[in-house]
Amino acid sequence: MKWYEKENETYHGIIISSRIRLARNLRKYNFPSKLSDDDSIKVIDIISDAIASASDHAVSLFEKIDMQNISQIDKIAMMERHIISPIFIRDKIPSALILSKDESLSIMINEEDHIRIQSMEIGMNLYTALANAYHVDDLLEEKLDVAFDPSLGYLTACPTNVGTGMRASYMIHLPALETTGKLRFLLDAIGKFGLTVRGMHGEGSDAQGSLFQISNQITLGVTDEEIIDNLTSVTKQIIEQELVVRNKLIDEKRLEFEDAVYRSYGILKHVRILPSKEAMTLLSDIKLGLELGIIKTAEEKKINIFDLMTCIQPANLQKLQHKELNIEDRDIARATFIRENLPDLIE
Amino acid sequence: MKWYEKENETYHGIIISSRIRLARNLRKYNFPSKLSDDDSIKVIDIISDAIASASDHAVSLFEKIDMQNISQIDKIAMMERHIISPIFIRDKIPSALILSKDESLSIMINEEDHIRIQSMEIGMNLYTALANAYHVDDLLEEKLDVAFDPSLGYLTACPTNVGTGMRASYMIHLPALETTGKLRFLLDAIGKFGLTVRGMHGEGSDAQGSLFQISNQITLGVTDEEIIDNLTSVTKQIIEQELVVRNKLIDEKRLEFEDAVYRSYGILKHVRILPSKEAMTLLSDIKLGLELGIIKTAEEKKINIFDLMTCIQPANLQKLQHKELNIEDRDIARATFIRENLPDLIE
Repeated sequence: MKWYEKENETYHGIIISSRIRLARNLRKYNFPSKLSDDDSIKVIDIISDAIASASDHAVSLFEKIDMQNISQIDKIAMMERHIISPIFIRDKIPSALILSKDESLSIMINEEDHIRIQSMEIGMNLYTALANAYHVDDLLEEKLDVAFDPSLGYLTACPTNVGTGMRASYMIHLPALETTGKLRFLLDAIGKFGLTVRGMHGEGSDAQGSLFQISNQITLGVTDEEIIDNLTSVTKQIIEQELVVRNKLIDEKRLEFEDAVYRSYGILKHVRILPSKEAMTLLSDIKLGLELGIIKTAEEKKINIFDLMTCIQPANLQKLQHKELNIEDRDIARATFIRENLPDLIE
Repeated sequence: MKWYEKENETYHGIIISSRIRLARNLRKYNFPSKLSDDDSIKVIDIISDAIASASDHAVSLFEKIDMQNISQIDKIAMMERHIISPIFIRDKIPSALILSKDESLSIMINEEDHIRIQSMEIGMNLYTALANAYHVDDLLEEKLDVAFDPSLGYLTACPTNVGTGMRASYMIHLPALETTGKLRFLLDAIGKFGLTVRGMHGEGSDAQGSLFQISNQITLGVTDEEIIDNLTSVTKQIIEQELVVRNKLIDEKRLEFEDAVYRSYGILKHVRILPSKEAMTLLSDIKLGLELGIIKTAEEKKINIFDLMTCIQPANLQKLQHKELNIEDRDIARATFIRENLPDLIE
């Protein structure tokens, strides 16, 4: 079972996932932006050998994927599943990915830094994600000479990561705040807490389906724990606001809200051409409707809307269909996939 | 069975109905706009006595409805069913309606003229409608002194009706021409043929659900047959254009068209709040989709979309619910009625 297929009951599904990313570099090599192909390969070998010979047997079995050996569609599909970052796709130097079986732990080698450890958990579980990331980091640092300065902390390619080298983030679903226009005010205030909010696929990406990533911007002069506690505290306040607006919708505009949810369901259940962005919006409505009990599916037909949202992304959709599809064919395949996988409602 | 419940196969359902209206007046009385209440009652009695004592037994059994004795909702419901005209609702003087059991033949007494005979038929059947209207007219003129001038023809309250006193009209469904914006050009040209196009409920009413009434404007110096032949010839050309655009939609944009029809179906099948105008538009899509074989219902579940369109009009909806409803409650009742009466599709 992949990490994202697990049950998520945290805060009514508002918190989709928790993610920790640690940036590390080998002391004796240039940062990837100035790394020769030969040295890139050496870096890959050193890091993957450290994993393969790790004292934790499970970690030593992590799969190593040579990024030069996989197709562009496979890469984009991995990005859509949040296993790799968007910039890792445009590999200019040899790079590799080390991946756990449940896809919750991954190491990008030669992304912006030599080492990018990523740890994902379902729901609000940053400390579990952090512990798992630390565990992999410890195994690596046992064997590797990592660039660390006693006064600055971990040294990284981009100065914004210097210090703990950690970025913590939550993926959150905020349809009620977004629909009512209240999100904008909240997001403006978030910068003051050293936090930033982005779309589904990180920097520069659009927010689709009311999904947002909230993460720390500051890594210097603070501990990992302080970062996580600050992020969690602010996120909980945002969630409280989302819950307030959801309850208001139910109390004051239940019928209009029911109407909107059922219309979205009716379209998804019959549509023939479904662009990605519209699909995300409609699925977001369904997710909210299910969470608020406006619509119900039979217990045994429980669906993971976030998983469905991932399956219909362009590259994942093509992998499911086992063929390359142009944009028109994808919109058709997406409509068919949703019609077939959206369960019937019970009244 | 009411006339509109009959099967309609004419031109793929593009022609909904044919309607003939004859305007007649009693020579010895003022036109209704200048008629005293006492004289109004006399006019009603004279005309209804002529019907009750008609030599045709079936016609003599037509029901007489005193318009002062029925509720406003019942009047509007009759207007929505095209039994009476909108101006007949705002009765300023005593008025009455004489109605056949299948509602295909009616006589409005003291509308704009003393006598307004109306004859409705399903599909393209103006000559049948005309024959039935003539039959009632003959029975009346046997007994009544009708205002007729040898050189002008029948005398009527409004000069535009002087002559034959006849208006012939077709109710036509033109979704393809309307959607593609081609209808505007056709309608501009229609005036040159002495014809006019209006919305569903005649003069000044909006076109909803792509339903239009096309009728003659000229009644002087032409015979009833010339009027009907001219109207039919022009209508056939409009239908040909509608069919050309429909075929083009199927040939060139089948998938987009399917998508639109299925989306409309999905919304109608799940909607909770349904305003009248939106309902008409969505049902128009379903009608077109069924006629073009894009969607199918089980044979035994065949539906009459035009009948459904009539049932969800405000007054008819309230009659079906046996209670008065405000506009919000009507939108909810309309949604429920459509969900329950729209049959399932077969793939």
